[in-house]
Amino acid sequence: MTAAVANDTFLRALRREPTEHTPVWLMRQAGRYLPEYNATRARAGSFLNLCKNPELACEVTLQPLARYPLDAAILFSDILTVPDAMGLGLYFAEGEGPRFERPVRDEAAVAQLAAPDPNQSLRYVMDAVRTIRSALGGKVPLIGFSGSPFTLACYMVEGGGSDDFRQIKTMLYRRPDLLHRILEVNAQAVADYLNAQIEAGAQAVMIFDSWGGALADGAFQAFSLAYTRRVLRALRPEREEGGVKVRVPTIVFTKGGGLWLEQIAGAGCDAVGVDWTMNLGQARALVGDRCAIQGNLDPMVLMAGHEQVRAQALKVLESFGPPSAGHAHIFNLGHGISQFTPPDHVHTLVETVHQYSREMRRRGASASSL
Amino acid sequence: MTAAVANDTFLRALRREPTEHTPVWLMRQAGRYLPEYNATRARAGSFLNLCKNPELACEVTLQPLARYPLDAAILFSDILTVPDAMGLGLYFAEGEGPRFERPVRDEAAVAQLAAPDPNQSLRYVMDAVRTIRSALGGKVPLIGFSGSPFTLACYMVEGGGSDDFRQIKTMLYRRPDLLHRILEVNAQAVADYLNAQIEAGAQAVMIFDSWGGALADGAFQAFSLAYTRRVLRALRPEREEGGVKVRVPTIVFTKGGGLWLEQIAGAGCDAVGVDWTMNLGQARALVGDRCAIQGNLDPMVLMAGHEQVRAQALKVLESFGPPSAGHAHIFNLGHGISQFTPPDHVHTLVETVHQYSREMRRRGASASSL
Repeated sequence: MTAAVANDTFLRALRREPTEHTPVWLMRQAGRYLPEYNATRARAGSFLNLCKNPELACEVTLQPLARYPLDAAILFSDILTVPDAMGLGLYFAEGEGPRFERPVRDEAAVAQLAAPDPNQSLRYVMDAVRTIRSALGGKVPLIGFSGSPFTLACYMVEGGGSDDFRQIKTMLYRRPDLLHRILEVNAQAVADYLNAQIEAGAQAVMIFDSWGGALADGAFQAFSLAYTRRVLRALRPEREEGGVKVRVPTIVFTKGGGLWLEQIAGAGCDAVGVDWTMNLGQARALVGDRCAIQGNLDPMVLMAGHEQVRAQALKVLESFGPPSAGHAHIFNLGHGISQFTPPDHVHTLVETVHQYSREMRRRGASASSL
Repeated sequence: MTAAVANDTFLRALRREPTEHTPVWLMRQAGRYLPEYNATRARAGSFLNLCKNPELACEVTLQPLARYPLDAAILFSDILTVPDAMGLGLYFAEGEGPRFERPVRDEAAVAQLAAPDPNQSLRYVMDAVRTIRSALGGKVPLIGFSGSPFTLACYMVEGGGSDDFRQIKTMLYRRPDLLHRILEVNAQAVADYLNAQIEAGAQAVMIFDSWGGALADGAFQAFSLAYTRRVLRALRPEREEGGVKVRVPTIVFTKGGGLWLEQIAGAGCDAVGVDWTMNLGQARALVGDRCAIQGNLDPMVLMAGHEQVRAQALKVLESFGPPSAGHAHIFNLGHGISQFTPPDHVHTLVETVHQYSREMRRRGASASSL
């Protein structure tokens, strides 16, 4: 395995170094909007089988890269592998979201929780990372990921998805000690999990705090951000690869976390993800040169036509503006791509980001040479 | 009908005049968490029957006031009365949310839309306002309300609730002309509806922009806030009552709109509602003396115990701080109360807000007399 990456635009942007174009990848880029994904999934028999089979996980990870000139691959996996490895009994009822057979709601259940050894019960994920790295052959970098300690806790306490987070918020307000204990275990588990992904070859890691934005101001800092920060501090991002020392950068994305952007940017990550409610120019001003910024096209733009995709992609690029010393933009959606997305619209998006961001840099360069 | 209100704390706070305590009311305060509400609803036969029967709507409006010393009553009605009056065929499938038989998705459906005469097809709402005003006997003021033009359009285009707003966002990006036309009709309809409620006796009116927060920055301003502003400009808030001229104040609440707070506060309303993700101290600094601020306890706090309700209510009051010239706080939740709320916790909340906000004022007064 070599550390060299043919297209390292994404990694350079994460280090806030100059790039020739704005790198672009899409959350959930390997997914149900692609007919080839659905074919592989059908062969796997179920979503969980697909996640747990390294060869098939590799196959679907590479599918969007065969179609589009994306600047990064992201490990195909589920956000709930960690609580599954804790023995909570993850299952998917057809047509419904994920559920746990044994939700964590009382003192006894909390006392039993322990961080799993990622090289044992989550070995299939590490195998997938190694398989994908090898199949990528250094074409683009591979992103590893995990849910945040709080987001994992939401599923663990609710026993599945929720629209009001009644169970976990009741615990948060009534028994904060229990929730803190769950989050301590989760922080350890997520740090171990991401460290194992880094050891297996992940070239960047992302923490998805999908539900932190459901918390009240104050509760977010104490129950979500504090534990994300703990994970970031426990990471071992330096690795030797082919005799070269590489540092694996980190991205934190809190959906609906725009009001807390400065605090998230100060948590010790290399990039912050923002959703489409945030103005990227404002985000850039607030974050300064502490982090790169990743985002933030509304995925529903991809439902419209090619022309509208182009126009809205330009708006996002213009709203961030030309990169400058210490300021870098990674183009992405503000949330996962919808299963109803016409695949050819994604092509237009990726092409537009590459072309227009090159033009922006040329204009910037000629303006500065005047 | 007299203009005098025995407890006008809420109205004075909306005018940013000094008050002896922080007024408190709760979104959806008349609702399923109250056994007496469920009894009335069972008698009505259905939710829509309850909304359309002025006597029963009055009965449930008054129920929370009989239990708690709330500082305002809010008209019991549904957010979808206006599109129902447009002929879209509102119905409620048991266990599901509201649905429309005829969603508005194409040119032909949009061309047929027209603002209904509120004193014809929505006469039952005006009858409810008159009945409630009379039954209240000036005890506390009555709030009238409507969904925002954009929020109504979400239901009209989606045909019901949605978690990705795929239909309306596809229209927004692909055929903005169609959506603008719907929003123009809705703005007229909402203004007419609120003006009729004001004429019937509503003493404050609130616009619920429940889904504006789902929009991208830029789209929110163009497709939600612009039309809320249009409604505010079309209101006739001055009314003669018992020989006295009264001005009916306005509240705008955009769930998830914290990033746009300053822009909403500049829209021409008397108060802005904020959800629990917003820090009230920051909100106060951003809004300045342009508006009162309403909010923002997480409704899930009410799931915990009396002690936790007290502690979190204090946090909200302290986070706004003592009122001062031009700065007023109206205590509320950051969203509607949950049907699972234990009713006695609400009592603790209302008492705490009243008592502690009086203490805050006393402390403030003795500090300033030093």
